[in-house]
Amino acid sequence: MTQFERPSKRAPESLREVSLEVGKSRYAEGSCLVKFGHTHVLCTASWTGDVPRWMKGTGKGWVTAEYGMLPRATHTRGRREAAAGKQSGRTQEIQRLIGRALRSVTDLEALGENQITIDCDVIQADGGTRTAAITGGYVALALAINYLKEEGIISTNPLVSQAAAISCGVYQDVPVLDLDYAEDSNAMVDANFIMSSDGRIIEVQGTGEERPFSREEFLAMSDLADAGCKELFALQKAAIDNA
Amino acid sequence: MTQFERPSKRAPESLREVSLEVGKSRYAEGSCLVKFGHTHVLCTASWTGDVPRWMKGTGKGWVTAEYGMLPRATHTRGRREAAAGKQSGRTQEIQRLIGRALRSVTDLEALGENQITIDCDVIQADGGTRTAAITGGYVALALAINYLKEEGIISTNPLVSQAAAISCGVYQDVPVLDLDYAEDSNAMVDANFIMSSDGRIIEVQGTGEERPFSREEFLAMSDLADAGCKELFALQKAAIDNA
Amino acid sequence: MTQFERPSKRAPESLREVSLEVGKSRYAEGSCLVKFGHTHVLCTASWTGDVPRWMKGTGKGWVTAEYGMLPRATHTRGRREAAAGKQSGRTQEIQRLIGRALRSVTDLEALGENQITIDCDVIQADGGTRTAAITGGYVALALAINYLKEEGIISTNPLVSQAAAISCGVYQDVPVLDLDYAEDSNAMVDANFIMSSDGRIIEVQGTGEERPFSREEFLAMSDLADAGCKELFALQKAAIDNA
Amino acid sequence: MTQFERPSKRAPESLREVSLEVGKSRYAEGSCLVKFGHTHVLCTASWTGDVPRWMKGTGKGWVTAEYGMLPRATHTRGRREAAAGKQSGRTQEIQRLIGRALRSVTDLEALGENQITIDCDVIQADGGTRTAAITGGYVALALAINYLKEEGIISTNPLVSQAAAISCGVYQDVPVLDLDYAEDSNAMVDANFIMSSDGRIIEVQGTGEERPFSREEFLAMSDLADAGCKELFALQKAAIDNA
Amino acid sequence: MTQFERPSKRAPESLREVSLEVGKSRYAEGSCLVKFGHTHVLCTASWTGDVPRWMKGTGKGWVTAEYGMLPRATHTRGRREAAAGKQSGRTQEIQRLIGRALRSVTDLEALGENQITIDCDVIQADGGTRTAAITGGYVALALAINYLKEEGIISTNPLVSQAAAISCGVYQDVPVLDLDYAEDSNAMVDANFIMSSDGRIIEVQGTGEERPFSREEFLAMSDLADAGCKELFALQKAAIDNA
Amino acid sequence: MTQFERPSKRAPESLREVSLEVGKSRYAEGSCLVKFGHTHVLCTASWTGDVPRWMKGTGKGWVTAEYGMLPRATHTRGRREAAAGKQSGRTQEIQRLIGRALRSVTDLEALGENQITIDCDVIQADGGTRTAAITGGYVALALAINYLKEEGIISTNPLVSQAAAISCGVYQDVPVLDLDYAEDSNAMVDANFIMSSDGRIIEVQGTGEERPFSREEFLAMSDLADAGCKELFALQKAAIDNA
Repeated sequence: MTQFERPSKRAPESLREVSLEVGKSRYAEGSCLVKFGHTHVLCTASWTGDVPRWMKGTGKGWVTAEYGMLPRATHTRGRREAAAGKQSGRTQEIQRLIGRALRSVTDLEALGENQITIDCDVIQADGGTRTAAITGGYVALALAINYLKEEGIISTNPLVSQAAAISCGVYQDVPVLDLDYAEDSNAMVDANFIMSSDGRIIEVQGTGEERPFSREEFLAMSDLADAGCKELFALQKAAIDNA
Repeated sequence: MTQFERPSKRAPESLREVSLEVGKSRYAEGSCLVKFGHTHVLCTASWTGDVPRWMKGTGKGWVTAEYGMLPRATHTRGRREAAAGKQSGRTQEIQRLIGRALRSVTDLEALGENQITIDCDVIQADGGTRTAAITGGYVALALAINYLKEEGIISTNPLVSQAAAISCGVYQDVPVLDLDYAEDSNAMVDANFIMSSDGRIIEVQGTGEERPFSREEFLAMSDLADAGCKELFALQKAAIDNA
Repeated sequence: MTQFERPSKRAPESLREVSLEVGKSRYAEGSCLVKFGHTHVLCTASWTGDVPRWMKGTGKGWVTAEYGMLPRATHTRGRREAAAGKQSGRTQEIQRLIGRALRSVTDLEALGENQITIDCDVIQADGGTRTAAITGGYVALALAINYLKEEGIISTNPLVSQAAAISCGVYQDVPVLDLDYAEDSNAMVDANFIMSSDGRIIEVQGTGEERPFSREEFLAMSDLADAGCKELFALQKAAIDNA
Repeated sequence: MTQFERPSKRAPESLREVSLEVGKSRYAEGSCLVKFGHTHVLCTASWTGDVPRWMKGTGKGWVTAEYGMLPRATHTRGRREAAAGKQSGRTQEIQRLIGRALRSVTDLEALGENQITIDCDVIQADGGTRTAAITGGYVALALAINYLKEEGIISTNPLVSQAAAISCGVYQDVPVLDLDYAEDSNAMVDANFIMSSDGRIIEVQGTGEERPFSREEFLAMSDLADAGCKELFALQKAAIDNA
Repeated sequence: MTQFERPSKRAPESLREVSLEVGKSRYAEGSCLVKFGHTHVLCTASWTGDVPRWMKGTGKGWVTAEYGMLPRATHTRGRREAAAGKQSGRTQEIQRLIGRALRSVTDLEALGENQITIDCDVIQADGGTRTAAITGGYVALALAINYLKEEGIISTNPLVSQAAAISCGVYQDVPVLDLDYAEDSNAMVDANFIMSSDGRIIEVQGTGEERPFSREEFLAMSDLADAGCKELFALQKAAIDNA
Repeated sequence: MTQFERPSKRAPESLREVSLEVGKSRYAEGSCLVKFGHTHVLCTASWTGDVPRWMKGTGKGWVTAEYGMLPRATHTRGRREAAAGKQSGRTQEIQRLIGRALRSVTDLEALGENQITIDCDVIQADGGTRTAAITGGYVALALAINYLKEEGIISTNPLVSQAAAISCGVYQDVPVLDLDYAEDSNAMVDANFIMSSDGRIIEVQGTGEERPFSREEFLAMSDLADAGCKELFALQKAAIDNA
């Protein structure tokens, strides 16, 4: 009988080695270099003391995100989006996702009329860049919030929960956690879970890449994500507390 | 005690009135005007006997989709994307979703080196345009496939399953099916299910708009979607058979 | 002797079957689905209570138009302009023409600082889309004007005349009215007349596609247009009165 | 009784001073600096020994035109189109018109698979730039054709007629020829006639700027244009013969 | 022994025939048609009584430049930048250079909140278009400044020095002045000097096209530029004084 | 008497701390993270076994560069160029400069029909990003060349010299080396020198930001650059040898 083995040799429920390094940017109000194995994303949080025009006067703040990938972050060089003259549909989809996720754990009224922009730039990509970006982007956001509190710009903490994200998939009919590029390319099913630290789902996107998936498979992936995000929440907390 | 009531007065598990009118385009190889209540989407399927450059010589075909909305499909006029000079991130996200969904039920090898482009143009919008587009787009695709078979361009049916889609949400803490615009704007949780006719999930996207959601809520929405899509599969079948 | 016959079998002076259906849009202040035979154009009129920046403070209003064509409105699928990232020269030329024509019958001072945007979207195209758009666009405009009067936003009727448009051509050396696509592709001469209901010319564009044309041919086409527009004015009036 | 007088003091049927200087470009296969009074347009004809992709193998050639205006050609500086990132609708409309007009007098089969591009760049603008461009563009085209014959690239003359253009208008209810900017801005009716040297109309565009116009007014303008173009044909012939 | 000879037969230290014709534009506040041999650039200076938004309220003015080239200014036709939809990197680099050079000799405080835009449009190109543009652009600027003084818009002369520019190169190992296109294409080293009339350098750009260059070669080119610009300063002064 | 002191406290002839770390990219054929003090630029070299279309069949290779800056590389967040839809003139100017510099030390014939693209992405910016990019880009290029030799793709070393770059300036009338942002913002004169390892100049760009500069000042800066680049050449050699 053939033994099931992931290309990464990891157990189905194992994350890659994850690190969250803070203070990597000299200028940003908050920053975090997040590594999920060979996937490295630099997340910076930039504060401005005003909001987009359509929000002025509402008393509420705004959190938004932008995503990019260095041309040679990947195995073969991709076209630079600035040279192509537009962001791809994939890029826009990811940055909209990051922004929604981080806004969902932020009380925009408590933020006041401040805007925080999270830039997530992929330095090196080996699968799971969007989940790494959300996980690291939360840390950058939390550090910028701390800065705003220290500076007296806001008085109450607008963060209502932590947010972290992880991918799951069905690889050779086995549900697995945190797919790298080799696994992702060969997965039958692929799902990204964004979780809040109370164990609920902020957003889920599941795709049957090669075949539809059953509810049972979905639940198995949901269990994996739940456990994986618990690990990520602990790492986020440690990184923020030690900053 | 306050009675729960949807703005549409529908029961939680009720679809809007759905119709799938075929043959609305004089020229397209397949077409379907799909109506989910006041949401009207014209779906056309256009065939070309070649494939994108990166697929040439593979022996496989391609199914892709484009999505658009007439400027005054909505309550207030939106900017025409052609005049703005680009498709919004939302538009690109939706058309990528439609394309993925329809490819997932198509055996691209059986299609041979043919391409079918599904255009989904929203004539009037009252919530759920992407789920209507997938549901009607499938019908247009199936009719174009029938045309290719009749013309002898392909010999076997590349469609391996039907695909349909429906939205669910949590409205005033009650899971409900097929949100219209008024309901969608006030839903706490919003999810789109794309199902195959064997009862499995092709793609799911769930978002906690106002708060995260629990696994139980997800499962309740999944049940609603399951039943709703069964109705849609029957309507699709009738529309295609009677064309 | 060979008998002259148009591909459409119509007499030289015959319009295609024309219909003007109002109330096809649930949201627009005025709307009209105009059909010239197989050419179908959805015209909506959208009101906003302000004017472009360069007109602010003049006390005058503005009427403008945008034109688009669904990708599969035609025999073969055309590229979606929103995806191409720009409107073609042809599209811009047509929408400028529609706007000029409708402004020419509107007293912009009587309109006050209101703007009405006419969207003309071609659902199906079989020649003469610009003349259908002007003819249907006028109806949508008139209905929006009626709405503004009913709402008390304006008090006097700014419409000084009806406007309608029709194409003429010289087909096999015979002047004919209202060319469909098959006729237009083979016409030697092609002209579009935009007329006011007092029998004068608002705008004329005549092109010798295959050969120059004489003044006599121009006058014969002008007679045909004159009679054709009289029919259109009656249909417009009926549609507006019955709305 | 008030005497009618044009701002330019010219008689209704008088052209501005027109000159057609050839050989103004050191490199182009044909060139002509055309002046209609203070309107100055540099027209160059550039030859390439191939045709656009969609024409390859047809044995036919192509004539096309591009139009531009220096930013300070006008009283107040206009935005540079290259900086704006696109050509205006007006620019595209004009260059399509110039191209159509010059193709209409060219036998594309006799041209063989050669392309001639006419660039019309307005150095100074005082009304009538499109008519000057067509009139001078014809001269540049004819000179390039002569060059191709001298070089043995083509053997027969593909030009079947001369083409020239002039504007007419109704100014203070009087039909007048060749409007300058001051007259054009105040004309009630404005029409551009493109004529062939056999006295027929290649293209006409007439617009009731302030009010519709009658057939009688159209005929009076047509007479003026007829006589004006006769003068232009003589000047074109002299310029080409003396080159 | 082979005699060194430039393609242009000029001595190493000789400028091409240079002319600076003023008053070539009927509308611009200042204008100059500059010719360096067959290189012809029309420079116009356009005044507006306000400044870019980021300068409002500073009390200072602004001088900026735009550069363009007619498509057939060169031996073979280049693509029109307006049609391409963007300015090339080369164009942007040149217009930034022209703007910097002219600002460097302008006291922006003395200019008050006025903006002068210098348009440099290359009518014909035979090498050295950027140096001709700066040299002629200065004349156009000075004439516009004179206009502003005459109109009482400014009271003191904001020009602190003249600015002129010339290219140098190393051709067949000999330093030479003012390269035309044939020389420039074959130069080993190419440098552009922008000088002020007090003999200092405003900007220098030197490139080893085929090989690096030594400090001695740089100094020899600098000497040539110094002498060449003295001639240009005299021509500028004469042109401005005689305007 | 006031003592001259640079904001950075460095002596006029002192470089910032410079480091060149290789192997920072898992995928690129060559890579170098270059630090000039707080200025950090990631340089990657990407190889493709073909050349741009216009070079095919020439037997020669190509080296080109692209430059970008992360939005929060600077004190205040800048707009992401991919989102803006175009690269700024500054970006294009810098990447053209990097490409020219690296091509100037490469024998393109010896490279064969291979292309190497150098991506220079600024992670953090504190002045001198273009000189750091050239210095680090050379290292990435050299490592990619070594890779091509090891793989047997090329047999001879196409690099004919090292290339490095450093900025100089005149700060408070004193010539100084390697300006950081604070110094650059207040320099009277600013020059970038790109040198070859034989002590010659590949390219120089000098600008009198606040006033023109004399030949003596230029020579003093040239001496500083000469010495500074010697240090950089040694660091480059060590980094490449130890890779």
